[in-house]
Amino acid sequence: MNRVFNFSAGPSMLPFPVLEQIQKDLLSYKNTGCSVMEMSHRSKMYEPIISHAEETLRQLMNISNEYAVLFAHGGASLQFSTIAMNLASRTDNIDYVITGEFASKAFIEAKRWSSNTKAIVSSKDKNFTYIPHITKNIIRRNSKYLHITVNNTIYGTQYNQLPDTGNIPLVGDISSIILGKEYDINKFGLMYAGTQKNMGPAGVCVIIVKKRMLRELDAVVPPLLSFEHMMKNQSMPNTPATFTIYVMGLVFDWLQEMGGVREIQKVNEEKATLLYDFIDNSQFFTSFAKKEDRSIMNVNFVLKNDQLTNEFLKLTESRGLVNLKGHRAVGGCRASIYNAMPIEGVNALIACMKEFEKEK
Amino acid sequence: MNRVFNFSAGPSMLPFPVLEQIQKDLLSYKNTGCSVMEMSHRSKMYEPIISHAEETLRQLMNISNEYAVLFAHGGASLQFSTIAMNLASRTDNIDYVITGEFASKAFIEAKRWSSNTKAIVSSKDKNFTYIPHITKNIIRRNSKYLHITVNNTIYGTQYNQLPDTGNIPLVGDISSIILGKEYDINKFGLMYAGTQKNMGPAGVCVIIVKKRMLRELDAVVPPLLSFEHMMKNQSMPNTPATFTIYVMGLVFDWLQEMGGVREIQKVNEEKATLLYDFIDNSQFFTSFAKKEDRSIMNVNFVLKNDQLTNEFLKLTESRGLVNLKGHRAVGGCRASIYNAMPIEGVNALIACMKEFEKEK
Repeated sequence: MNRVFNFSAGPSMLPFPVLEQIQKDLLSYKNTGCSVMEMSHRSKMYEPIISHAEETLRQLMNISNEYAVLFAHGGASLQFSTIAMNLASRTDNIDYVITGEFASKAFIEAKRWSSNTKAIVSSKDKNFTYIPHITKNIIRRNSKYLHITVNNTIYGTQYNQLPDTGNIPLVGDISSIILGKEYDINKFGLMYAGTQKNMGPAGVCVIIVKKRMLRELDAVVPPLLSFEHMMKNQSMPNTPATFTIYVMGLVFDWLQEMGGVREIQKVNEEKATLLYDFIDNSQFFTSFAKKEDRSIMNVNFVLKNDQLTNEFLKLTESRGLVNLKGHRAVGGCRASIYNAMPIEGVNALIACMKEFEKEK
Repeated sequence: MNRVFNFSAGPSMLPFPVLEQIQKDLLSYKNTGCSVMEMSHRSKMYEPIISHAEETLRQLMNISNEYAVLFAHGGASLQFSTIAMNLASRTDNIDYVITGEFASKAFIEAKRWSSNTKAIVSSKDKNFTYIPHITKNIIRRNSKYLHITVNNTIYGTQYNQLPDTGNIPLVGDISSIILGKEYDINKFGLMYAGTQKNMGPAGVCVIIVKKRMLRELDAVVPPLLSFEHMMKNQSMPNTPATFTIYVMGLVFDWLQEMGGVREIQKVNEEKATLLYDFIDNSQFFTSFAKKEDRSIMNVNFVLKNDQLTNEFLKLTESRGLVNLKGHRAVGGCRASIYNAMPIEGVNALIACMKEFEKEK
């Protein structure tokens, strides 16, 4: 069996030991005679699995009891809507920072809920190649929250510093950087992340929210979209995505064995530095994200001669380096190098880039 | 490895050959070098997987092109809300038949959307032990749809005949009977079913809906909850639960090999008949659902001496017959015998019941 290095932006690579564990458990988990997929979410077999996932995530991210940790259905995109519904009324001011496609989508969905939603600043003027500077005076004083997209998968940028929002709660989409880099959790009122980049199979969204921010909802909002309702029911107001949560637990265990977020961040920075350094020194490849705002998770680059891009992608594919094509919004190439991407994958990519550059 | 017979109402047993196939594919699906969990939903690797799942389901249920087939996030319970949002305005009449807890929940969520939602008939008077007779004259003439719960998991009842609703579209929650029994699909405007009983791991809901019933939605409804939006985006307005959909495809393949729904229905009827016949002839066990309305998927029974229930459940568990405890709303025992439960499981249960009855 030849495994490939999968540079997909999500769903993306999982740690190999995790896949092996899933395979081992598949017909019978820990002598239960059942696959985890077959377990009732209310059973004694399953309860420790979901509690363990939550507990390990709390340890990894240093999440205090001030926060609820929810495993919600629907991925991060559904939360673009539910966050506004849960944190704001239909007339409240809500502020958004626009740093790319997902940030824009989040803004549009919030605006559907409250007409007083405002994009206070955007980096669209330079095609989202940088993170705008956010000062307290551009945030509306009575805003319910300020929403940022902490890592921008498509444009390859990330916040290296979290903005100081004063009394306004900070809400962060951390889908593509959760567990990849340490942030001060306590600066956030709410963080959320789809599973399919650094945590497991697609379909679940982790929501970490300050309990005191939760409120009773407008009657039109389905209770299954209410964070308070989810919290009161330990993420099980209905059947959760039991198997996905089990895989997440295994990924969290693997990360703890790797030394936790601080240690994996070092590896991630090393991988990113290797790749950016090569690009910066190349006459052939170039990168467009502003240096100070570059993402350590999604490395975008283009061939100066774009006509060679397809040929380059064919070469990488033939070497088992797959899904390097850039998002259609930006073109070129993108190497998503989340936690599960080994440094060997990055080295193999660089070797391939070198070779291609030399030949052309 | 000792596999158990798992009588859980859901998540529930999966066909063993399906589990073996998942295990085989887990580190590298069909020589791709990737697990299905790791594949981008937009990749050439994944596209055939979701198309195959839809295509096979269409064949198995004989679904014409008049209908869209959607793989939605959030399980069936979220659709209690979204169905009303998608099919009715906030003032439309909507009619519900109350045959148990899930039917009631579906009604409550629809009422949250339209205040003109009405429970036109209920079997609560006899603790949901029967299916009420539905005649055209009890359905409101301008009702947007009539909602029924085709199989009632908790109370062990099912519709053997679908009601004649005339011009009013019939909407059916078929979560616990989809692919277990043949129904005339064309009698429905919309059917929906959570995956975790007869189709795969929890977290997805299949929605089968007449395309011409879909409409543009009230602006307050998130587009990710719009069936029309899902249809236009081939169930991928955002990242779907890729792995769950792959497992569903394998379950559908297995069912086709078993001869399709007509053949599995015969097996299901045989399993149910064996169990009900034993109960009916027993002096020790009894069943409470009305005979004509008994479910072939969920067989409820009680011990005439309820004080022996726990002892009986301990015995079954020691024999590898697990999750037989009845739902807290009704007590006693429940054997969920979905498609994946082999007849050997039912025979083992009956043997155990006989033995216990003899000893006491």
